[in-house]
Amino acid sequence: MKEKMKKFREIIKERNMLESSLEILQWDLETRAPKKNREYLSEVVGYLSLKSYNLVTDKNFIELVEELKNSEGLSWLEKKEIEYIYEDIEKMKKIPGNEYQEYSELVAKAQGIWAEAREKNDYDMFKETLKKIVEFTKKFAKYNRKNEKTLYDVALQEYEKGMNSEKLDAFFGQLKKEIVPLIQKIKASKKIENKLINNVEIRVQKELNKLISDYVGFDRERGVIGTSAHPFTMNINKNDVRFTTKYIENNMFSSIFSTIHEAGHGIYEQQIGDELQGTVLAGGGTMGIHESQSRFYENIIGRDKRFWKNIYPQFQEKCEFLEKIDLDEFYRNINIVEPSLIRTEADELTYSLHIMVRYELEKEMINGEIDFDKLPQYWNEKMEEYLGVTPDSDANGVLQDVHWSTGGIGYFPSYALGSAYSAQIYNTMKQELDIDSILENKELYKIKQWLEEKIHKYGKSKTTEEIIKEMTGEELNPKYYIEYLRKKYMEIYEIV
Amino acid sequence: MKEKMKKFREIIKERNMLESSLEILQWDLETRAPKKNREYLSEVVGYLSLKSYNLVTDKNFIELVEELKNSEGLSWLEKKEIEYIYEDIEKMKKIPGNEYQEYSELVAKAQGIWAEAREKNDYDMFKETLKKIVEFTKKFAKYNRKNEKTLYDVALQEYEKGMNSEKLDAFFGQLKKEIVPLIQKIKASKKIENKLINNVEIRVQKELNKLISDYVGFDRERGVIGTSAHPFTMNINKNDVRFTTKYIENNMFSSIFSTIHEAGHGIYEQQIGDELQGTVLAGGGTMGIHESQSRFYENIIGRDKRFWKNIYPQFQEKCEFLEKIDLDEFYRNINIVEPSLIRTEADELTYSLHIMVRYELEKEMINGEIDFDKLPQYWNEKMEEYLGVTPDSDANGVLQDVHWSTGGIGYFPSYALGSAYSAQIYNTMKQELDIDSILENKELYKIKQWLEEKIHKYGKSKTTEEIIKEMTGEELNPKYYIEYLRKKYMEIYEIV
Repeated sequence: MKEKMKKFREIIKERNMLESSLEILQWDLETRAPKKNREYLSEVVGYLSLKSYNLVTDKNFIELVEELKNSEGLSWLEKKEIEYIYEDIEKMKKIPGNEYQEYSELVAKAQGIWAEAREKNDYDMFKETLKKIVEFTKKFAKYNRKNEKTLYDVALQEYEKGMNSEKLDAFFGQLKKEIVPLIQKIKASKKIENKLINNVEIRVQKELNKLISDYVGFDRERGVIGTSAHPFTMNINKNDVRFTTKYIENNMFSSIFSTIHEAGHGIYEQQIGDELQGTVLAGGGTMGIHESQSRFYENIIGRDKRFWKNIYPQFQEKCEFLEKIDLDEFYRNINIVEPSLIRTEADELTYSLHIMVRYELEKEMINGEIDFDKLPQYWNEKMEEYLGVTPDSDANGVLQDVHWSTGGIGYFPSYALGSAYSAQIYNTMKQELDIDSILENKELYKIKQWLEEKIHKYGKSKTTEEIIKEMTGEELNPKYYIEYLRKKYMEIYEIV
Repeated sequence: MKEKMKKFREIIKERNMLESSLEILQWDLETRAPKKNREYLSEVVGYLSLKSYNLVTDKNFIELVEELKNSEGLSWLEKKEIEYIYEDIEKMKKIPGNEYQEYSELVAKAQGIWAEAREKNDYDMFKETLKKIVEFTKKFAKYNRKNEKTLYDVALQEYEKGMNSEKLDAFFGQLKKEIVPLIQKIKASKKIENKLINNVEIRVQKELNKLISDYVGFDRERGVIGTSAHPFTMNINKNDVRFTTKYIENNMFSSIFSTIHEAGHGIYEQQIGDELQGTVLAGGGTMGIHESQSRFYENIIGRDKRFWKNIYPQFQEKCEFLEKIDLDEFYRNINIVEPSLIRTEADELTYSLHIMVRYELEKEMINGEIDFDKLPQYWNEKMEEYLGVTPDSDANGVLQDVHWSTGGIGYFPSYALGSAYSAQIYNTMKQELDIDSILENKELYKIKQWLEEKIHKYGKSKTTEEIIKEMTGEELNPKYYIEYLRKKYMEIYEIV
């Protein structure tokens, strides 16, 4: 059996090397490659993806995994590994190789097409590509459907295993019920004037992004901060975790909070247990738990007054206009609640409404026969319904997010779930750590260590349910999130 | 036979995709990857290199190539292609796969080690790696030795096919004989004060680099300009040609001339004939002819007063200190002759002496049993002998160039050969083009087109000898280079 495990390791190592090459290609495509070579590089992505697919769907490899699965004497970790790859193979082998290659090439190419379409505010440029991606998603969902009620529920498994639309409907329903009246109250209370819109040189923004990512604990010696059309994080291994941000000259805090968000993802990946390195379990768990880390850093920590107390003076030094804004006012400014067009710039309260718009549309795309010509219109109508604002352009509407172009249909709910997890996690954290003193003494490493112990080190070796339950003593419970939001915003808006 | 050619194309396409992935990995390693992941990524380079090796050394592929080689009815281009790949296979198949993989991994890793060693001025950090690279170079040279007199002569074939030490000795001997007395005369004449050493923000330097690379005709829509420890150019295909430069805050013209140099390489790659795309002949010829293009743009054009006449005012606008330096003085300043430590910063006249130092040392490394502990000392002694200056550190001595770490032993002579080719090419160009009017009217595209017609479009389908002979009517003749240098510098230094 040792011999078999060795053979298994060799193939996994090979696969990791192919996947690493793919990550680097992807990184290059999104941050560096000249537009005119994107099509060719996407073909290379398709080619290497097929190589990776072939490795794990090879008959001998499947047999090997099955034998290992049924054998005694594996360690706990080895068992988990075999289980994980077994499930992976089960899904992969149902997809024909040529379709897998075609799809991989398509989504690699699609991101460039999307970026250009958004830049040119031209939905039609992206429409056919989106259609193709949706068709593939449906097809793959059909291949892998077990007892899921809808195809969208199958798609969800990619991002949050065990989740389904029924649960999500209930979850979003509850959020809506609590959040919408709160937003109404805020609308009726005194407006906070936004003083943070001001031109700041990209060069200065970049410096501050480094400062803030160091501050939260992202290790730049084992990471890279880049620039792309839409912020994302990727990891090759714990020694090479990369994220991007995008810069808006007159809105520096857009890149600052996106950096804190991505640094949250990055810290997770940098803290995966050493014993998992090189195994299929190295890397964060579901997207829900992943987003809980990014949303935790971005919002719960990153928009806390105590967090800024120590670092805000350095921002004031670099940006003259901040000198006139004291910490209290700054704190209120970074927590202004106002329905707006762009998800990534949204406040914590209206954020979930943005997710609901996407959730409902993508559900429709996968389960129904949506009219793609009308997708921008549907988007705008839902924005009007949920947020009371209507996009002034498709670039600020249906084209604003990269996800669908990457094949990430079913991803969006992870943001809302992650936000809810993060509040629940924070509720436990507060009981075990002295957050006041940690922030007062710039000891954010203590939070990082705590998260490492409770979440990060496990990588994919535990499910999100297991982690959340062991950590907080209960399953996902949105009440912590709702409480957190209510308490925070009633205070900021002085609602009694 | 059509069927066979189709099969051949498929394998070459696959190989190109692997090689493209390798290029992207290499680019990433040198411009972006976190230090702590370089070792792993180098392993990935080794892995993919072996995949590429396996493709072309596969028994069936070799048979296929041999059959095609002996068959009638191939087009001229197909014949050339088959010849080219046949020679490639001949070399490759003599090297065992595991050694090829190990070597590829080693040189990928070595560049990071070299960069760190140079940064820390620590030769010992690099010594063992260099030793290993030299051992591999010797071993591979032994495998591929035909009737070459020395192993170094075998190594030379990688960079300048048909070249050997005997010819190079004669070539360098002639250069030395002519150049050294000229340098002596310059030493005795009136010194030109260097006014170009001045702090200029990297941000401004970057802008000016874009400006100048656009000016010479590098197409940034099909290319990228990056930053690395040592400037280099790489190409994935004509739609994706990338080069780097490095920035020195108080010496902006270091990056400016390195950019013109690399843009010269880049223009070559961007102008490879369309009909060669996807074939093994896509890409520049020998390194000698490649360097003729970079050295031509950097020096013959790039240090010509007429070239600067139109663009210098834009530099003056961006850099206040240049306002006090008029075009005549600027021209003299960018052509100051002064023996110095760093090859890439050297003037045209002392440049070849830098090459000779490297040529003699690498010859010794490959043919003899050099004492690697004493390599820095040998370097310094040769610098003293040829240039009359002694390096103040290994960083400014034996560690200054990246080439040996990339496995590029035998590369350096290409710079001197390229310089000589460039003067010979220019001699012809002047007869066919009105250079005065081209530079006066900012019509550099005419030069670019001329080079495309005469050199670039052929890619690897013609040998350097063929190109030079068809173009200039004779073989490499260093007299043009010597004449060019003599005329230019006697005028600048007012030597009668």
